[in-house]
Amino acid sequence: MTRNEYNEIESYMRSQMQDSAHDRYHVYRVLNAALDIASHIEKTDTDVLIAACLLHDIGRDEQSSDLKLCHAVIGGKKAYGFLVSRKWPEEKALHVKECISTHRFRKGKAPQSIEAQILFDADKLEASGAIGIARTLIYSGQVGEPLYILGENGKIITRDGGAEISSFFQEYNYKLKNVYKAFYTERAKEIAVKRRKAAIRFYKRLYAEVTENYDNGVRLREELLSE
Amino acid sequence: MTRNEYNEIESYMRSQMQDSAHDRYHVYRVLNAALDIASHIEKTDTDVLIAACLLHDIGRDEQSSDLKLCHAVIGGKKAYGFLVSRKWPEEKALHVKECISTHRFRKGKAPQSIEAQILFDADKLEASGAIGIARTLIYSGQVGEPLYILGENGKIITRDGGAEISSFFQEYNYKLKNVYKAFYTERAKEIAVKRRKAAIRFYKRLYAEVTENYDNGVRLREELLSE
Repeated sequence: MTRNEYNEIESYMRSQMQDSAHDRYHVYRVLNAALDIASHIEKTDTDVLIAACLLHDIGRDEQSSDLKLCHAVIGGKKAYGFLVSRKWPEEKALHVKECISTHRFRKGKAPQSIEAQILFDADKLEASGAIGIARTLIYSGQVGEPLYILGENGKIITRDGGAEISSFFQEYNYKLKNVYKAFYTERAKEIAVKRRKAAIRFYKRLYAEVTENYDNGVRLREELLSE
Repeated sequence: MTRNEYNEIESYMRSQMQDSAHDRYHVYRVLNAALDIASHIEKTDTDVLIAACLLHDIGRDEQSSDLKLCHAVIGGKKAYGFLVSRKWPEEKALHVKECISTHRFRKGKAPQSIEAQILFDADKLEASGAIGIARTLIYSGQVGEPLYILGENGKIITRDGGAEISSFFQEYNYKLKNVYKAFYTERAKEIAVKRRKAAIRFYKRLYAEVTENYDNGVRLREELLSE
């Protein structure tokens, strides 16, 4: 890919992610991770991979406006249309579309080609480690989710909340904890090993800090209050 | 304090924190930590301390509506008015007001009485450790601050951004990193030791994950793009 072609795709990505401008850093990290993974694999189509990474979240604004829409499906279609308009060969544009439309975790079809699997893994690395924790907490703040919810026993609820309001602790146990099983490539698994340890360590510390605080505080309060 | 008195103050706090309902968990953690600290100090007025902790953030909604207002000053006045209306002795209600009006870090007067210092420390513990990291990231999401900003050299900006847009990395270096110097009580310092290690560990991991990602990705991209 020439630098000019790269810049054109990047500009299109930016024009399509106005509402989610902060997510651009996510896009670049996904691209960076994908190129790292690809450098450990003998043969990949890096043009397809770069385009797919840059454009993988361009359906986000549409999904935000209508939660029934899937950003992966919409993003794939938009990327295909854009690349064909930029004179990309039909076959390559279709390949990018396939990569984007299969990059979601748990939803939709599984990624088939190696490029689709690399995008999938690079995107999943974003839910791993300290960065996965940080992104999930920022997301909790954006959507107004609390850090935790206390159950009737006064303990933090760590299971999936189902239809009820969710919390960071529930998101961690529902999504972040399980992302490590999902990787296709050896390089992604390798990057994730250290990250997983960091995520677990942080989660346990957070749980311990809050739990110790309640255990001591509630006991002392009960001792102080008279009937 | 009787259980009924406690419940009355708690109800008033809840009625005054409608816009910041999630912060109620923060209020209880501050109360829990304050009682823990107080249990290590020979003589404290626990009635004053409990009321000051429960009511310390009741000026938040006013500050959110008008950023020129200081929630500590407003909260102190409101708490005083409420407690006097509940037949608290003038002197005790004034003491609660003093505790609340001096609980801010870096802004306003320093806390003088032991109860004011305990509230100050208990509130500062909320900026320490994993809980401090988690609260700051959730706050970043709420106000639309990014995780980091890249400087012109492509590296994460970690210094204070001044009047510019701020990021989690800047907040960490401006506020979270320095909170450990601020404690008045030995018990708060003791609780903070382990927390500090956890916060530093997480921050370093986050920095390493993002930096490694960029270092590898940008180099590989430069190798792939042709002129």
